[in-house]
Amino acid sequence: MEKLLVIKIGGNVIDDEEALSSFLKDFASVSSKKILVHGGGKVATAMGSQLGIVSRYIDGRRITDDETIDLVTMVYGGLINKKIVAALQASGCNAIGVTGADANLIPAAKRPVEQIDYGWVGDIHPEKISSNTFQILLNAGIQPVVAPLTHDMQGHILNTNADTIAAVIAGAMASFFDTSLIYCFEKNGILTEVEEEKSVLDKMDWNLYLDLKQQGKLFAGILPKLENAFNARKAGVRTVMIGHSDDLLLLVDNKGGTAIQ
Amino acid sequence: MEKLLVIKIGGNVIDDEEALSSFLKDFASVSSKKILVHGGGKVATAMGSQLGIVSRYIDGRRITDDETIDLVTMVYGGLINKKIVAALQASGCNAIGVTGADANLIPAAKRPVEQIDYGWVGDIHPEKISSNTFQILLNAGIQPVVAPLTHDMQGHILNTNADTIAAVIAGAMASFFDTSLIYCFEKNGILTEVEEEKSVLDKMDWNLYLDLKQQGKLFAGILPKLENAFNARKAGVRTVMIGHSDDLLLLVDNKGGTAIQ
Repeated sequence: MEKLLVIKIGGNVIDDEEALSSFLKDFASVSSKKILVHGGGKVATAMGSQLGIVSRYIDGRRITDDETIDLVTMVYGGLINKKIVAALQASGCNAIGVTGADANLIPAAKRPVEQIDYGWVGDIHPEKISSNTFQILLNAGIQPVVAPLTHDMQGHILNTNADTIAAVIAGAMASFFDTSLIYCFEKNGILTEVEEEKSVLDKMDWNLYLDLKQQGKLFAGILPKLENAFNARKAGVRTVMIGHSDDLLLLVDNKGGTAIQ
Repeated sequence: MEKLLVIKIGGNVIDDEEALSSFLKDFASVSSKKILVHGGGKVATAMGSQLGIVSRYIDGRRITDDETIDLVTMVYGGLINKKIVAALQASGCNAIGVTGADANLIPAAKRPVEQIDYGWVGDIHPEKISSNTFQILLNAGIQPVVAPLTHDMQGHILNTNADTIAAVIAGAMASFFDTSLIYCFEKNGILTEVEEEKSVLDKMDWNLYLDLKQQGKLFAGILPKLENAFNARKAGVRTVMIGHSDDLLLLVDNKGGTAIQ
């Protein structure tokens, strides 16, 4: 099978103009078929407070009310997505910017209200991903750049975690391509000491994950990323790497960062 | 040749939630291949003033400085474009929202500074339109929804008139499809008395255009639209119709509005 890379770039890198520019040049230089999924960054929050929209969070998740979904649709789906596309085009990468609503690429359902009403937040049905349309784009030499937004197929845009989007796309494409998932962020990989970049693990399997989690050695923000990573492996994704955005060209060769096994 | 409709919807309709919703249902119901180009509306100006960005105009054209291009990228390329896409998806139309940067669909050049510096405004090279990519999307049953933005292929998004984008796309596609261009706005067509909707012309040719223009019977805003319409005809577009957004299903059958000959 032909190789496909699904690469996710986190919000902290998006907030750093220089790091982002360098990352995008590296991304453009990779010759295999590829999909980029990007996070949100702090621009939405900054823009929101200028517009008088107060961001509310519960357990680290943004509550997406009517004003906030418009805000993130503008900022994630417009400003950030199109800036990335324009930069990639300038580097010779034929990128197309999309949300999950576009071409119905990522159908989702509004999260049911239980203890907490998260608002316009979407949970993806992995089996409904439009893998056929992703293939049409990739086979035409077009590289999708995916904003962290989905839709409910009833006219509403939904806010969806970018790590989850990347994992689900990679899982859906694994039937058609030899698929690798690469999570790029501002750390060197999975660290056993949060503040010590040298404590990066070369590899992590499910048992080690459970051990470290029980020992409290994994910082909270990394847990959902790891769950997404293991889900992608279970869905047939060949390799999953987590590492620093500066190291993309190493990670593509399964070097640097942490390999999820 | 197979039929293709290139339909442009103006900003005044976008500002009117009910009119837009009704228009999009009609658009979704048309069975032929189709491309939708949308204008900007007043949302960008309103959002801009909330953000402290003052809109400047010269001769009715917005001056697009650094802040303004970010603003319109957010609002046109994000908020408006994705809301339209989500609404069309809900009506069973497999829409994909794009700017001219996406998949390099509409390469342009920053307008040279002469008497006036318009800022980040793009003039399209009609011969560089990616008609092949438009065809790939259309043949896959995907309907492009185009925001009024292009790019300079050097990493910058450019603000570009939606009427011009629609005319240039229609002209570029006329070699591959039996192409019609339909301009939908808030008037019944080309009026000989600006405030009298009943004064609509059934048809207009170049000589009548010159006559009416000389007599001062055409209001200023309509002149660039008519020039775009005649340019599309010259580029091989079979029919060009100008009419009310409520009359889309008539215009599609070359009824209602003004036929440009």
